[in-house]
This record gives sequence, C-alpha cells and structure tokens, in this order.
Amino acid sequence: MSASVAVYRDIYTEDRFKQAYGSEEDAPAGLRLREKLAGKCRCSRRAWLTLLGERVPLISWLPSYRLRKWILGDAIAGLTVGILHIPQGMAFALLTSVAPIYGLYTSFFPVVLYMIFGTGRHVSTGTFAVISLMTGSVVEQLVPTPLAFNSSSPEAAEFEAQRIGVASAIALLSGIIMLCMFGLQLGFLSTYLSEPIVKAFTSAAAFHVTVSQLQSMLGLRLPRHTGTFSLFKTLALVMENLSHTNMAELLISVVCLAVLVPVKEVNTRYRHRLRTPIPVEILMVIIATCVTYFSSLDSSYNIEIVGHIPAGFPKPQLPAFHTFPAIAGDTVAITFVGYAVSVSLAMIYADKHGYSIHPNQELLAHGISNTVSSFFTCFPSSATLATTNILESAGGHTQVIKKEQDVSTYPCHLCPQAVLACINVTSLRQMFLQFQDLPELWRVSKLDFMVWVVTWLSVVVLNVDLGLAIGVVFSMMTVICRTQRAECSVLGQASNTEIYRPLENHSKCYEVPGVKILMYNGPIYYGNRSFFREKMSRVLGLTPEKIRSREKARKALEKREREASVSTVERGVANTSFSSVNEFFETEKDVQAVLIDCSGVIFVDVAGARLFTQMCTECHKIGIHVYLANCNESVLKILTSSGLMRHMNPQHIFVTVHDAVMYIQQQRVKIHHEYMCITKYIYIYTANGICSPI
Amino acid sequence: MSASVAVYRDIYTEDRFKQAYGSEEDAPAGLRLREKLAGKCRCSRRAWLTLLGERVPLISWLPSYRLRKWILGDAIAGLTVGILHIPQGMAFALLTSVAPIYGLYTSFFPVVLYMIFGTGRHVSTGTFAVISLMTGSVVEQLVPTPLAFNSSSPEAAEFEAQRIGVASAIALLSGIIMLCMFGLQLGFLSTYLSEPIVKAFTSAAAFHVTVSQLQSMLGLRLPRHTGTFSLFKTLALVMENLSHTNMAELLISVVCLAVLVPVKEVNTRYRHRLRTPIPVEILMVIIATCVTYFSSLDSSYNIEIVGHIPAGFPKPQLPAFHTFPAIAGDTVAITFVGYAVSVSLAMIYADKHGYSIHPNQELLAHGISNTVSSFFTCFPSSATLATTNILESAGGHTQVIKKEQDVSTYPCHLCPQAVLACINVTSLRQMFLQFQDLPELWRVSKLDFMVWVVTWLSVVVLNVDLGLAIGVVFSMMTVICRTQRAECSVLGQASNTEIYRPLENHSKCYEVPGVKILMYNGPIYYGNRSFFREKMSRVLGLTPEKIRSREKARKALEKREREASVSTVERGVANTSFSSVNEFFETEKDVQAVLIDCSGVIFVDVAGARLFTQMCTECHKIGIHVYLANCNESVLKILTSSGLMRHMNPQHIFVTVHDAVMYIQQQRVKIHHEYMCITKYIYIYTANGICSPI
Repeated sequence: MSASVAVYRDIYTEDRFKQAYGSEEDAPAGLRLREKLAGKCRCSRRAWLTLLGERVPLISWLPSYRLRKWILGDAIAGLTVGILHIPQGMAFALLTSVAPIYGLYTSFFPVVLYMIFGTGRHVSTGTFAVISLMTGSVVEQLVPTPLAFNSSSPEAAEFEAQRIGVASAIALLSGIIMLCMFGLQLGFLSTYLSEPIVKAFTSAAAFHVTVSQLQSMLGLRLPRHTGTFSLFKTLALVMENLSHTNMAELLISVVCLAVLVPVKEVNTRYRHRLRTPIPVEILMVIIATCVTYFSSLDSSYNIEIVGHIPAGFPKPQLPAFHTFPAIAGDTVAITFVGYAVSVSLAMIYADKHGYSIHPNQELLAHGISNTVSSFFTCFPSSATLATTNILESAGGHTQVIKKEQDVSTYPCHLCPQAVLACINVTSLRQMFLQFQDLPELWRVSKLDFMVWVVTWLSVVVLNVDLGLAIGVVFSMMTVICRTQRAECSVLGQASNTEIYRPLENHSKCYEVPGVKILMYNGPIYYGNRSFFREKMSRVLGLTPEKIRSREKARKALEKREREASVSTVERGVANTSFSSVNEFFETEKDVQAVLIDCSGVIFVDVAGARLFTQMCTECHKIGIHVYLANCNESVLKILTSSGLMRHMNPQHIFVTVHDAVMYIQQQRVKIHHEYMCITKYIYIYTANGICSPI
Repeated sequence: MSASVAVYRDIYTEDRFKQAYGSEEDAPAGLRLREKLAGKCRCSRRAWLTLLGERVPLISWLPSYRLRKWILGDAIAGLTVGILHIPQGMAFALLTSVAPIYGLYTSFFPVVLYMIFGTGRHVSTGTFAVISLMTGSVVEQLVPTPLAFNSSSPEAAEFEAQRIGVASAIALLSGIIMLCMFGLQLGFLSTYLSEPIVKAFTSAAAFHVTVSQLQSMLGLRLPRHTGTFSLFKTLALVMENLSHTNMAELLISVVCLAVLVPVKEVNTRYRHRLRTPIPVEILMVIIATCVTYFSSLDSSYNIEIVGHIPAGFPKPQLPAFHTFPAIAGDTVAITFVGYAVSVSLAMIYADKHGYSIHPNQELLAHGISNTVSSFFTCFPSSATLATTNILESAGGHTQVIKKEQDVSTYPCHLCPQAVLACINVTSLRQMFLQFQDLPELWRVSKLDFMVWVVTWLSVVVLNVDLGLAIGVVFSMMTVICRTQRAECSVLGQASNTEIYRPLENHSKCYEVPGVKILMYNGPIYYGNRSFFREKMSRVLGLTPEKIRSREKARKALEKREREASVSTVERGVANTSFSSVNEFFETEKDVQAVLIDCSGVIFVDVAGARLFTQMCTECHKIGIHVYLANCNESVLKILTSSGLMRHMNPQHIFVTVHDAVMYIQQQRVKIHHEYMCITKYIYIYTANGICSPI
C-alpha cells in the first residue's frame, strides 16, 4: 500500500455542501407519493400472475418440481412423516381433550391446505403439543368431564361432540384472526421472535406438556389446572394423588419410555445411516393394542383406553359458534403462540436451506388451513417441531407428497392412553436437549443468554402465552437498553490525518486544544435524554460551581464590553471585571468549543431535539460554542424544525469533524487576536482612568 | 472561509490504523474492573457525607436556604397549598372509599416525609385522584358497603376501620415495593415515561375519575365497577339509574360546578396578577356546610353527607396485614402508576427550573413516606398534579413550609358529598385541557401523536394500569420500529473530496465506478435482519436469476484458471467458458465490490453478525468482494468474535470510506491488468488449441 490519500478542498458547512453537491430542489411530497403509487399500481396481466404466484406458492413451484429426481425422497419422507403423524395425532388429541380420531383428521386437512398456500418447504404442519395443550385447557373449562363418566354410555357421544365443537370453534376463530392479521399485513410481528426466545419457549413449553401428561402416565384422573402457576399446581395435585397411582398404567409407561427413549436416540444419532427412522411410535401403539386386546387389560386393571374410533372420512360438522364469546381471549393467545412457533420454525429451516419465508403469506396459509379444516372437526394446527425435524433428515424437498396416511379404519381403540402420553413426552426430547446450547450462548452473548433464561422462567413459572409475551417484551427491552446506554466518547485527532477516534482506545490520538470533540453512539430520544445529558456534562467537566463561575465571568466580560463601548469610567468595576475576564479566558483554554460528532446519532425525537436546544443555551451561557458534524438528513430536519437554529448558528454545522476543527482553529486565532486587543485596551483604560482605543 | 482542508497520508485499514495510533495493550478486563471498583469504594468521611446528602437531600439544601429572600413566597405557597389540600384531601378520600378525615391525614404525613427525602422541589405530595380511585376499587372489593348501611350505627365505625385498614395496608405494601425497587436501583424505569404518555395518561385518567364521581354528583348509590371496560360499565349503570337521581344533590352539584369552573378559570388566567389563587374550594365547603347545617338538608332531602370527623392528631394504627395476599396484584399496579406519575411530574418541573431529579432517590422518598404514613391511617400517596401547578405559580422555592394546615377539629361533617365530588371533577380541569396540545403534537411529530392517542384510548377503554402499560410498550415499539426501518442508501462521492453522501438527496455526487457504497443507518440485530438483507439485495440489484448466472460465470472462470494451469486442452469447454468469463467481467463492470459504511451501525447482535457472515459468503459466490469502513469498536469486536474473519479478509476493513475506495481503485487497475492478460491468454489458447503463456 504505497499510495496515499490526498485531499485539498474548501471547508464545508452543511449549507455550503448542499449548495455545492445537493439536489436542486426537492420534489413536492404529494408528487413523490403519486409517483410511488403509480409505480406500484401496474395492473397488468403479468402483475396479476405474480400476485397469484405469491398468494398460492404451489403454482409457482409445482412447474419446476423435478419429478424424477425428487419424487423418491419426497415419497419416503411423506410416508415416514405420515406414519409418525398417526400416533402423534392421537397423542395430541389426548392433550386437546378430544377423541383421538380428531387428532388424525387434524394431521390431514391442515397439511393439504398448507401445501397449497404455505411458503415454508420443510415445515410439517399438523398437531402441535403446546397449541393442543392450550386448546385442551379451554375445552376442559367449557365442557368439563362429568364426575361419573362412562365412555360407552350414550351421553358419551354427545359429550365428545360438544368437545370437538369447542375445539373446532377455536380453530375457526383462530383462522379468522389470522386472516384478519393477514389483511392488516401484521406478518412483520414475527420478526420480534429471536432465536433465543423461540428456543427457550419451546423448551419451557415441553415442561408444561410433560407435566400435563404425568396423570395419564400414572393412571390418575385429575382435573386440569389452567392459568398462572398451573405447572406447579398440577405437580402438587399429582404429588397429592400419588398414592392412587394405577400400577398397571405406571408399568406400561415405564416399559414404553424404556423402549421409546433409546430407539429415538438411535434414530437421531444414526439419522444419516438410516434410510428412514425406525417408526417406533406406531410399533408401540400396535403392540400395546395387541397386548390390551389379548389380555383385556382395560377391564381387569381399569386401564384407560383410547375408545371408539369411527371409520372413514370425517363428516363436515359446524363448529360451536355460540362459544365464541367464551373462547375469544384464549383463542387470541393460541393464535399468537401458534403463529409465532410456526413462522419461527419455518424461518430457521429457510435460513438453513437458503430460501425465504413470507410472514404475511404464512398468515394466509395458516389462516386458511385453520378456517377450512375447522369445518371438518379439526382442532387448531400449526407447524410441529418433532416431525419437521424428521422431514428434514428424511430429505423432503417440498411438501408435495407429505401424506399418504390412511385416515380410515384403524383398530387401535384399545391402545392405553398411557402409551400415547409416553409418545407425547418422548416427542419433546429435542426441546429438552436445547439446554445444551446454553453454555455456547453465554460465551457468545450475555444478553441473548439472559433473554433465553427470562423467557424460559416466565413460561415455566407463569404460563405459556404470558411467558412468551414477557420474553418478547424483555427481548425488546434489551434492544432499547442498548440504544439507551450508548457510549459517549471524547475523540482525538490522529496526527497529520483527518481521522478522529476515541481517546480511550487510541492513546496516540491527541485532543485538539480548546475543542472537546464528543461522539455519541446512539439515538437521542426520550429514553436516554437524561443519560445523554449527564454523560455530556461529565465529559465536559461541568460541575455546578464551574458553571456558576464561568457564567459570572462571561457576564462580566459582556458588561465590560458594553461599558467600554459607552465609555463610562469606573475604576473598581473595571478591576474586578478584568480578573473575571482573565479567569474566563483561562478556563477557555481547556474548553472553548464543543463539537458533537453525530455520525452515530441515527435518529432524534422531539424530546431529544429539545435537549439539544437546552444544551446549546446552557453552553452559550458559559461561553462555549456548540458545533455539530456528520449529522444525517433526518436528524438535521428534526433539529431544524424544532427550532434549534434560533439558539445555534447554522454555520456551525459542518460536513465532517475535520472541517469543524479547521474552522474552530481559524476562529481561535482570530479570537486570540481580539483578546490581545481587549486586554491591552483594558490595561490602558484602567491605568489612565481614561478610555482610549489603541 | 478562504482556508482549505488539506490531507496527504497513507491508506489505513483498521489494523494499520490501530498499529499507528491505537493503545499499546488493552489492560486485562479483571484489572480494569478492579480499578473501577477501587475508584468507587473510597470510604472516606467525605464520601459518606456526600452519600448522606444524596440520600437525605434536606441536609444538602437546608443550609443554603435563603431565609429572608424565600421565606415569604414559600410561606404563602405553603398556606395556599395547605388550604387547597383540605377540601381536596377530603374529596380524594371519597374516591378512596374511606372517611374524609383520612384524606386530611394523607395530605399531611407524606408531605413532611417527602420534604426530607425527596429531590423534587416543586412537587406537591399527597392524595392523587387516580391513585385514590385505584385504591378505592380495591377497598370496595374487599370491604363492600353493606346494603342497608346506616352511617351512625355502631357497626359503621368498625366498617370504617376495616376500610382504612385495607387502604393503609395498600400504602404499606406499596411503600415496601418502592423500597425494594430502590434497593434494586430500578429508578431508571421512569425514563420510559415520555411526555406524551404521561399527558395522555393523566388526561384519560381524568375521565375515569369524572365518571366515578357521577354517582355522587347525582345522588345515586351504586356499586363500583372495576377492571377492564369499567368506565363504560359505570356509565351504563348511571344511565340505567338516572331516574333515581336525587334532585337536591343534582342541584347542589350544578351550583357547585357553576361557581367552581369560572372561578378556577379566573385563577388560571390571572395567576400572575393574583398574589394567591382564590381558595374557592374551601369557601365552597364552608358555605355548603353552613347551608346544610341551617336547612338540615341531610335529613329532609336525604342528601349523603361527609359524616363524623374525629378531632385531633391521628392515632397510630396497624394496617390490615392479613389482606396482603388479596391486595398484592393491585398494589403492584398502584405502585407503578403512582411512581410513574410522581417522577414524571417532578421531571417536568425540574426540566423547567433547571435542576435534576434522581429517580432512585424519589423511589426512596415515596417508599419511606408511604411506609411510615401507612401506620398513621393514610392511604397511598403520590405527587399531585393539581396542587403542584398552584405551588409553582404561587412561587414556592422549596418544599420547606408547604403545610401549616390544621388537621384538628373541623366542623365540616355536614358538607354534602356532592360538593366534594364537584371539587374532584374541577380539580381535573387542567388534565382535560391537555387535548389542546394535540394539534401541535401532530405537527411536530406524528409518532408522538400516535403514542398519545394509543395511550389515551387504552387507558379510557381498558383500564388505568393496563392502559399505562400498553402506552409504555407502544412507545417502546416506536423506538424499536425506528431502529428497524432504518434508511439504507447508496453513497456517491462529492468530486475532488473525501466526502461520500446519499445519492438520493445529493444529485451532484457521483457513484464510484465498480463500487457500491452502502450506508445503513441503524443497528443490525434480530429485529431488522430480514429487512436489512432485503434492502441490501435490492440495492445491489441481485435478483435470483442474476445471482445464478453470475455464480455460473465465476465457477467457469475458476475452472478455466484451473484447467489452464494444468494445461489440459479441450476446445468446446474453452469456448463456453470464454463467453461466461466475458459475461462475468461485463456484469463486473457495474458491481465489483460492495463497501458498507458502518458509521450508522451503532451495534450488532449475534443474529446480525451471522447475517454479515452470510452476506459475505453469498457475495463471494458471485464474485463480489465485501469491504467495511467506519466500524465502531464494539461492532468490530462482535463481528470478529462471531467468526466473520474466516469469510472475509481483515485487510478489507478500512478506517474511512475514502481509504477503502482508494484501495479498491488501485486493485481495479491491477485486476484489469490481469483480466487483459487472461483474455489474451485464452484467446491464444482457443485459437491454437495449444496452451502457451503470453
């Protein structure tokens, strides 16, 4: 690097620079807006096709589907996920407190609809544990299990119908809310879900699901707790009733876990060697059903079984519209959580595979899939973590053939509920494993670690929806805190260059005599107003006493100048003023001008602009001039419109720090010259008692 | 400005600049921390005195109190506010649903304690309408008015004792919470209350207070509504019961309002001419009492009167500790609202008069005053807007003698409650007038206007505490949005200078050929990651097709180079590659390098750093080099620690944009030279079918 930077040019204030290089005239805002709109509203056929392709992504990717190359991988992936969905659908139906068959339906309809409208290619849609759990607690509240409940009684069918009515009403309302959000283009909300939030949330939600399954695993029949602290309440209830454990069900659970956990471990560890993962869940269900059938476990040991599963395609059925007022609040929470999890999951996989997710389109896709499938006795659906993972490892390219599952006759009504509960719990394995990320997170970023911990704790301790909200707000708070606690550093000049850098880590940069160059590295707004003010006065070393003395000195100087001009002679005053003037110029030697480098001030609000004005008047009082440099367009605009220019010379706003320093140094030479004149003048004046110009 | 900026120096990358001007060696973090701590822990006598002065501000300002100069103004201000406090204390006691005498106590104890510990010199402490209302609804919930209530019955005393027990328990718990917050130094929370929030909140809260007073003004005895939508519920209830209006009380209210409103208007309009404002409230109370006494209104027209007022100093009484679990939730809300209003009021006046408020010290002051006074049958207190205003206009310098009110015998037990209700409503006059600020706010800042409207609507529609929370969160969201939707502009060089400015508003700046200089004016973090990415690729004009073709061209070029070096001859490939190479260099002519000016990137988080890495690899794929300039210290650190340097040449990070441009232009000359060689080489190679170096 032999070559050099060579510059020789005029000093530029913002005004002069604008004149030299700025645009001639800003187009009127109305005109610009019209142009913009005109640019958008091209209603050609092509534009319509593009829009259609955006809204129904199936159209845009189906023609480019490479049938021969991808079909095999996709078919295998589809089959695998389909088979996995069967036991999981049933298990999640247990969480939702509806009959297992509805879980199967929910694993089918939303998937087909999402395939048409969704943009996430690796996302498996269907039943999701947390959403199921949240829906389940609403269902339990509205249609509580009667105390003496006989699953074979004629009321049972009516009861089940009521339950799925409520669940599908939730799905419908949730779909409608999503469609409204799509209408309002609220998809951007998903950006607030950073990775630590999503991971902590899913990990903590896994605890909720596990605890809710404890009673099924132990064979207890307990009421469900909802709301804040529900996890601990449920745990306490289970502890109290430990003595009523059904030993047969406990045994089943232990056996199930003993098989499921190691096999799933094998599935994960050897995922690359296995062509498809071992479908251990479905094997488990089949074996359990056979065992129950041949040993009639259900009657002899009072084991709760899945119960009647109707055959064939579901009959369309209207959701329970009349429950809308009762479910509205919870449904909003379910919708947000479901959408949040779905989109953030889709985003994580899209990032990995280099395509992009359109949050608004996702809203549309999930909205349609929930709305339509609610008429086919489905409960709310979303993306599911467990099967999404498998889909990816099985090599699914698109969601074309994700499902060949047979939703027809299925003789597993004898399967014990404990088996499904175990399937539920083991499906959350990955979520529990997210604790392993924590040390790495701590190393890379303490803030992200804190976000993780706060989200996790609030979800576990409080509630799923409230916890997620707290996590999001906390995460935003960290951003706000970063903008608030910005660095304020004193800059020094790297000798022989036009570069100015913080003195604290550039020991060979030197302060320009008489000028404090300050740099604030963040916006100035209501949130950090007082912080900025404090920092400034500390950096300038302005203690109240110093301010008072400087103010006095400046006033005396002004008075002196005034008196000198009117030529009134009064020796005593002249003497005191003389010392004040001296003192003034002495302090002046350290700070005569403050130059604020605004290159890091990304925006200023009204409160911040007012602070600037205050600072200018205060500095003016103590005889310090304020200069600005590197202001961006929007900052300049708000500073001007809030009336800063009435307190500050517009010629004191420079294009770069170096321009300002050059200008100030020139002024210093001039002032020093004037000062010499004044002192000489005063000297003559006091000595003779007669005023005479030099 | 005849002089010029003249620079002649080497090109600096960050590394080289650090070597030339940076600090020798960073001190180890542990050492620096120890130094910092050592700097803080000077346990000298002086430090203790400073701390004491900070904690008990009375000590620091009492010696400098100018007795002769300030005593008169303060005495008058004190008397005025004292007299005003008497009727208002009683009126607010009505809001709190306790006997009026407790309102008088609450106007006395907290004031004295705040005087000792508080830092706000113009703040009048005591009863505050919103806090009283919130406390009142808790009191009503826990100790509801019996249906057949006779205020003279022996149970009445017991009933009143229960009520004040709950109210003072709230005060105690609120004080304890504030002290805990002080312990945790949570005073900074008050910075989140921007002026629009506080103004909208107080204005909307005034509506709540007014509606809650309607029933007293109309002489209705209705249950109190609490929680969300309470304003509308109460209004509906009042409407339903309009027919039961007590005409006598309605008459009293109308007369009261007819007197109070104009006199208060006079008080405000001629505040500078009037030595003290007309104490119309107390006159009103006295007149009403006299009228009731002589005409025995209470018995003949069934008018609700204030009732028994005990004489003398209050007897210390324990708050109702056992209610703590029941009041905890509401008390947290009351505490936050009270603290928020107090500190933001104090701040507004401190800003006006040029001293500063210490939010943490305010927590201590309000905490102590609530805790201690709760043992003297006081309900929660805070700063009050109404009297604070008067205090300022009456010329109070400090809060020394703010109170000489006589809390002893006071024969106004006959005063009708309607009068107090009218006093309450008219005291909110100023809050209603805040609507006048709206047009100005709209003009200056649309965002602040939106914050105002959102806060106001949520407080009015939902609830006082929830509304405030929504306002604060919304206000934060606006800040977050500003950091998210930052401008991304293409910079151009002002000819013959080292200054680079956005092309959009500097039409006479020109793009440096072959380099896209981008500037992003905000942090890069999880919230705007996708936004930043989108902007970047739009600015670079990178459509998916373009990326694919460039990638192909680059690969072909690499292959060609490889093949050329191993001297394998194959004419066909050479031909196609040749066209690709040509195409590559053609596109190369518009973007060969991307230079990102990071001066506005105030921070980067882990997600943002990962995005940088992704961008680098993507750009590398299509043969574009990435350069950075003007990175600040913290951004550089996180980019380095997250492994960006594995994908990017550290020599591509420059100190200024100009350095980078100089370097790139030198490189271009070099590359162009090489390119000429390659094309020549290939030409020879393809023409002869034999590889020969030039």
